[in-house]
Amino acid sequence: MARDERGVTPQSEDFSSWYNEVVTKAQLVERGPARGTMVIRPYGYRIWELLQADLDGRIKDTGHENAYFPMLIPESYLKREAEHVEGFAPELAVVTHAGGKELEEPLVLRPTSETVIGEMMAKWVTSYRDLPLLLNQWANVVRWEMRTRLFLRTTEFLWQEGHTAHADEAEAMEETLRMLDVYERVSREMAAIPVVPGEKTPGERFAGAVKTFTVEGMMRDGKALQSGTTHYLGTNFAKAFTIQFSNDAGHLELCHTTSWGMSTRLVGGVIMTHGDDKGLVLPPKLAPHQVVIVPIARGEQAQTVLDAARELATRLKAAGIRVHIDDRPQLSPGFKFNEWEMRGVPMRLEIGPRDLAAGTALLAKRLGNEGKTAIALDTAPETLLTALDDFQAFLLQRATDFRESHTATTETWQEFTTAVATGWARALHCGRPECEDEIKSETAATPRCIPLDGLAEAGVCVRCDAPSAYGKRVLFGRSY
Amino acid sequence: MARDERGVTPQSEDFSSWYNEVVTKAQLVERGPARGTMVIRPYGYRIWELLQADLDGRIKDTGHENAYFPMLIPESYLKREAEHVEGFAPELAVVTHAGGKELEEPLVLRPTSETVIGEMMAKWVTSYRDLPLLLNQWANVVRWEMRTRLFLRTTEFLWQEGHTAHADEAEAMEETLRMLDVYERVSREMAAIPVVPGEKTPGERFAGAVKTFTVEGMMRDGKALQSGTTHYLGTNFAKAFTIQFSNDAGHLELCHTTSWGMSTRLVGGVIMTHGDDKGLVLPPKLAPHQVVIVPIARGEQAQTVLDAARELATRLKAAGIRVHIDDRPQLSPGFKFNEWEMRGVPMRLEIGPRDLAAGTALLAKRLGNEGKTAIALDTAPETLLTALDDFQAFLLQRATDFRESHTATTETWQEFTTAVATGWARALHCGRPECEDEIKSETAATPRCIPLDGLAEAGVCVRCDAPSAYGKRVLFGRSY
Ligand SMILES: [Zn+2]
Ligand SMILES: [Zn+2]
Repeated sequence: MARDERGVTPQSEDFSSWYNEVVTKAQLVERGPARGTMVIRPYGYRIWELLQADLDGRIKDTGHENAYFPMLIPESYLKREAEHVEGFAPELAVVTHAGGKELEEPLVLRPTSETVIGEMMAKWVTSYRDLPLLLNQWANVVRWEMRTRLFLRTTEFLWQEGHTAHADEAEAMEETLRMLDVYERVSREMAAIPVVPGEKTPGERFAGAVKTFTVEGMMRDGKALQSGTTHYLGTNFAKAFTIQFSNDAGHLELCHTTSWGMSTRLVGGVIMTHGDDKGLVLPPKLAPHQVVIVPIARGEQAQTVLDAARELATRLKAAGIRVHIDDRPQLSPGFKFNEWEMRGVPMRLEIGPRDLAAGTALLAKRLGNEGKTAIALDTAPETLLTALDDFQAFLLQRATDFRESHTATTETWQEFTTAVATGWARALHCGRPECEDEIKSETAATPRCIPLDGLAEAGVCVRCDAPSAYGKRVLFGRSY
Repeated sequence: MARDERGVTPQSEDFSSWYNEVVTKAQLVERGPARGTMVIRPYGYRIWELLQADLDGRIKDTGHENAYFPMLIPESYLKREAEHVEGFAPELAVVTHAGGKELEEPLVLRPTSETVIGEMMAKWVTSYRDLPLLLNQWANVVRWEMRTRLFLRTTEFLWQEGHTAHADEAEAMEETLRMLDVYERVSREMAAIPVVPGEKTPGERFAGAVKTFTVEGMMRDGKALQSGTTHYLGTNFAKAFTIQFSNDAGHLELCHTTSWGMSTRLVGGVIMTHGDDKGLVLPPKLAPHQVVIVPIARGEQAQTVLDAARELATRLKAAGIRVHIDDRPQLSPGFKFNEWEMRGVPMRLEIGPRDLAAGTALLAKRLGNEGKTAIALDTAPETLLTALDDFQAFLLQRATDFRESHTATTETWQEFTTAVATGWARALHCGRPECEDEIKSETAATPRCIPLDGLAEAGVCVRCDAPSAYGKRVLFGRSY
């Protein structure tokens, strides 16, 4: 089927093609020259910046300070924590030569920074008075993955990684759950993704963690996207790097540490949670342009209309609205409408000479059945602020409805396989890794998390009839 | 000479030791495990964040958009521009293995991104309507330097790098000078460093540039620190990466490109421009804590005083002042005074029971001869806002006076060598590279720049008596 150059393959036809076409055509991102790398273009980077600014504020409000640690880590550091190196060794990129010479010890590009930060924490922490130590960094990391996909899994990606040290397990666990809550709120309030917070089963834990927690979002193909994770690391890294403190009785104790991260992957989550057959749909809080004004006039009226558009844009900006005027002379209004629709702009305003004479503009929303409605220019800032808030809330509700209608509480294997074919299944599970593997090989579904808000429940495994574990249901789904 | 653990070697005794001790003891930065890398601690990173936020705003206000390009660059890319690879090849760090295998083509860690961005620009620019293309990225870069020094020259550092493409030389030159002006303003207005903007002589140009411009700051040892550079790249990279556009007559033309960067090095510049024998002196606009409140009370009055300090801090924060309360119970006021002095906090407020009863606090400024002065608590926010502005202006004036008194217009070789022993020399120069080399080997001074505001002047070279070049004086100095 031939398509308009700006059109995209429908989601229902091929979700994966839809995604690849949308991210490229909407000018969010494209492939970099080195295998699996991405170039984040201004329109995509702006989404990340908006998310970053919000998340950074929340990280600071919870008492953390930003710092920066070297990207180059001596290879030997990773080997100090046995599970950690086992998990990351296959994905490492290694610098063997520098300054024209072979290095005595190879340096790895950080896949995550527990090791180098652990080494520094050991120097900075001596007394209980130095605790808690609450650090965060914004950085790039490199993981040499087999299969890559723009935003979702790339050789290099951007993220924040928090690293904290505490005097005991209770405080470290409190931190781990506090940051999970931050991730849940950022996902919900900024990205309009109603993620499910929960704990990972042992097989899905971060390499070196005692407990791993996650927020899982449902994409429009029914799959799950792990959108942020927090880890209680126990004393594993404290032992490996000698992060210890003298307590108030003067005795040495090991610290309990945590780490937590959220990445550019969430931009992929935004695209796959809200997009439709016409392209992107951006939640207003993360939209580079919340409103695009298209002036429509020819000849001698063109300048008058453009001036009015600029005056309106100035007032919208003053109200805190991110607005863009599309004044490209060589393109038709219809072309512009299609383009901004495909690029997911929440609100479009059209202004022509007649609208101007009537003191109005035509408002078209990216989603909904209202069609175009005339709004008064006088009160446009307030009207649009409300409309943007409503649109943000609408997207969250729509995504919540979608998730609920694609999640089933399942008792039988038949119900389970039906549910995970198009969405998620809540099921009792025995907790055995071999049983998880069987489920995965038959259905492609994996345990996404044990939801924090799940009710106490016991019975038999949906797959093998062995007694259920965890004391509650596990959420299963296919994933990215 | 034995020193207090928190004390530092006096600047006059050994500037280099002073610097290394200050950056570490003030908890700005320390060495990372891999050779030449640095760990930027929260107190140092906050300075960078404040600078970054301001500079990012200026970059956006001049029409640029942020984007992100991969750190891993195919080795072959660098070779496409002959001068560029010649300049950077000795400093490259190379990834040869990844994912457990040897790579077919090694990947270098970006030392700067002209090549990979050039490759992408070639895809994005087709018509004159796509120009100018105004991009910037915030990123880490890696240069394997022989001698490293924290903040000033490290294996990995943080920076922003702007990259733009234009239709002709005039526009590209205008951009190059516009961003030089931005760097000059940021240095002056935020860092209180009265930098001298000027053009680099051919021998000091960026590898691959047609013209390089710089802002040079004078440090308190009389040396020059190159604090930001902008480059007009002509069509060199456009040729190497085929960045071309069809003009309005439909003919293909090569773009004229620019690049410009400012880095964490400027944090080193702040330290060396304003610091003194007691340690750091931070300009208020970049100080993580502009005001530190030290509550002074024991026993039953301690809580009352602490409550008053918190109430004051709340009002100062509301006025936009970055304030910190040092309520560490185990440390004496005297210890705290010394520590915050060493860490460069512009203003300290002491509050005790008697001050509280009088409705005042004692204000001590980091520099100046006023001693401690009582200020009214009622009007503390306005008093401090004014005092901070004055302090910022005072630092700039002090640095300007220092620079002026350490810069001489020199006619003879004798005058020249005397001037560059303790500061800078304005001198006529023949422009011959061999003559620059001789000057460097005899005095360690190099041409820092040809100041933009220099008056037209001609004569003979201060060193070799050949006719002078450039039509104006060159600024010479020793540098970092
Ligand atoms: Zn089972
Ligand atoms: Zn000469």
